[in-house]
Amino acid sequence: MKILIINSGSSSIKYQLTVMPTNEVICTGMIDRIGLETSNITFKTSLHSLEELLPIPNHKVGLQKVANMLLDPEKGVIKSTSEISAVGHRVVHGGSDFSDTVRIDDNVKAKIKQLFELAPLHNPANLEGINVAEEIFSSAQQIAVFDTAFHQTMPEVAYKYAIPNYLLTENKVRVYGFHGTSHKYVSEKAIDFLKENSKIITIHIGNGCSMAAIKDGKCIDTTMGFSPSNGLIMGTRSGDIDQSIVFYMIKNLGYSADDVNSILLKQSGMLGLTGYSDLRDIESEAAKGNKDCQLALFMNAYRIRKYIGSYTAALNGLDAIIFTAGIGENSSYMRQLVCTDMDYFGIELDYEKNQIRSKEIREINTPNSKAKVLVIPTDEEYEIANQVYQLLNN
Amino acid sequence: MKILIINSGSSSIKYQLTVMPTNEVICTGMIDRIGLETSNITFKTSLHSLEELLPIPNHKVGLQKVANMLLDPEKGVIKSTSEISAVGHRVVHGGSDFSDTVRIDDNVKAKIKQLFELAPLHNPANLEGINVAEEIFSSAQQIAVFDTAFHQTMPEVAYKYAIPNYLLTENKVRVYGFHGTSHKYVSEKAIDFLKENSKIITIHIGNGCSMAAIKDGKCIDTTMGFSPSNGLIMGTRSGDIDQSIVFYMIKNLGYSADDVNSILLKQSGMLGLTGYSDLRDIESEAAKGNKDCQLALFMNAYRIRKYIGSYTAALNGLDAIIFTAGIGENSSYMRQLVCTDMDYFGIELDYEKNQIRSKEIREINTPNSKAKVLVIPTDEEYEIANQVYQLLNN
Repeated sequence: MKILIINSGSSSIKYQLTVMPTNEVICTGMIDRIGLETSNITFKTSLHSLEELLPIPNHKVGLQKVANMLLDPEKGVIKSTSEISAVGHRVVHGGSDFSDTVRIDDNVKAKIKQLFELAPLHNPANLEGINVAEEIFSSAQQIAVFDTAFHQTMPEVAYKYAIPNYLLTENKVRVYGFHGTSHKYVSEKAIDFLKENSKIITIHIGNGCSMAAIKDGKCIDTTMGFSPSNGLIMGTRSGDIDQSIVFYMIKNLGYSADDVNSILLKQSGMLGLTGYSDLRDIESEAAKGNKDCQLALFMNAYRIRKYIGSYTAALNGLDAIIFTAGIGENSSYMRQLVCTDMDYFGIELDYEKNQIRSKEIREINTPNSKAKVLVIPTDEEYEIANQVYQLLNN
Repeated sequence: MKILIINSGSSSIKYQLTVMPTNEVICTGMIDRIGLETSNITFKTSLHSLEELLPIPNHKVGLQKVANMLLDPEKGVIKSTSEISAVGHRVVHGGSDFSDTVRIDDNVKAKIKQLFELAPLHNPANLEGINVAEEIFSSAQQIAVFDTAFHQTMPEVAYKYAIPNYLLTENKVRVYGFHGTSHKYVSEKAIDFLKENSKIITIHIGNGCSMAAIKDGKCIDTTMGFSPSNGLIMGTRSGDIDQSIVFYMIKNLGYSADDVNSILLKQSGMLGLTGYSDLRDIESEAAKGNKDCQLALFMNAYRIRKYIGSYTAALNGLDAIIFTAGIGENSSYMRQLVCTDMDYFGIELDYEKNQIRSKEIREINTPNSKAKVLVIPTDEEYEIANQVYQLLNN
């Protein structure tokens, strides 16, 4: 069964064509900078690797371009759009309505639209992708996989804020959590690896960063809340701050609310602390003695350590911590900082195993470590394809 | 040595006259609702207990009233203001300038004034109290004891936010922490009791609520940050929330920034969740089956448990947790909720000992509990008097 996965961002479309259940990836690529003068288009199969610059004014033209590349006889991917059985759409915000992957109908589309104000950058692009895909791949099943769905198992005690109740009941202000597809994927891999249901903490650190406390396969808490802005320190996002800083900046420093929001999302985090947003640059500067970069790395790891403690309390135990995503999979230094001075939690890193670079799941703790430390490469595209496949075959 | 302790709030003055080093309390009382039509005045010695209603238009008139009561021959407290050696002023915000108790001079007053915008409700009242006390008790030493001072030992990694650096260097936006006098007092009592320097977590839960991680007597982290609004769930304050909720309420729900600030400080916390702000009411409603009250208590305890985990990570160990302040000292139910399902942290509550009501320091864990659970009544007035006494005798 051929499944096309579409991940529409505000100005981009990532796509992948996968055969399930074998998970053979036929083709993968993205269109970037949609709406700008020239968009960057990539297309990759085992035989072809194409990169071109073309003006792509909107998502509809973009998806049509993807379809044309897939259908191009020279590239030999598909002969007709009817070969594609299903299109799996990554949808960022499913609110409280969706705790699972669903077939898209008018009702689902209406709900995705109702959630625009909770995810103003993402859900409109996701819905646009769905609408266009329905036209172009009209014989395929359209399926939505929500970033928030995995976190819907959180108990009230974890998802509720201590604010007036009407803000939850009328305005839906609560913890949603994000990166759910990744937390689900790596936690399931971890449970397979550990051969038992267990108390685990997943640490997804990449462009965005979040952690989740997972008990017997179910998420019970997560660091991102109402939006993807709080919790861990990210490339340009502050993560947790005292909310009174917002009021102070508005009242005493003369910023507008929009300014403050933009500063906290785009000029904060590692960028605000160091002038760099890419962790590789920061690590290399820190190694050269840059004090701001050293401190920012310590702050970042300190916050992760504190959340490990916090979630160990929520779980009342700890069997494993899992590192994943760009930084989690590739930065041995960040993993080392996180695992330093954590022996009270039974975390003992094996420094040699931590240096190994691999695309495979690996255990990097010492044999005596009470808690396992795992590195598990995330694969959100596979997870989406698999969820679509499971839905259509059950 | 007679020391008068003055704690000026925005519309109140609390006072206590204490003989040091014996800590004999000669007289204690408060003036409430300053500036309203009638103020409530209390005055208590071992012989007299007075309560009266009088118009007190401002702090100057209020402090003069206190002086007059102290000097009243019928009450027999003092014959002359010159008997008072020192006035110890509680000052809420000492910024980064004060890590210890200091003699007040023009320079100190100027710095307290510079901090008005960081503590707009408290520091102006504190300075007013100082100015008036200098006039009335002109022969006494005027001493400032800061609520933030104890937390000044926090390392950069704990006090810095992941926001652009200029907000710290130019605008002094950082974690300050509050309730320092209480955290200092109970942590020192705990260390005496435990007979060793140690890794302890102090849990001050009363009207305001905060926790601190204390290593070998020094604060290394605390839950309140730039202001006293975040961290734990309080009577009417939300504690931690995703800051994006502020922007959502302004942009999508039509509130002003001031409205949102006021909602988060005055209509949130236990009040927002239950309609009650007093924990005794909430516990009694919960016992009758009120679901909102039950959930609010669980949420409150869950957040404390998560911070215990978080600070155990910061300390890489845990020797004791200390409950103090109104709720911490008196609510056996809240202590029980906090200590439930925390055996991974070596916390085992003795349910019978937990029921004991006492004004004494007490240990309420089982003999096997790896971490001690202590209840230590706080005494901020003694701590202030003692700090003043130590300063003047060293």
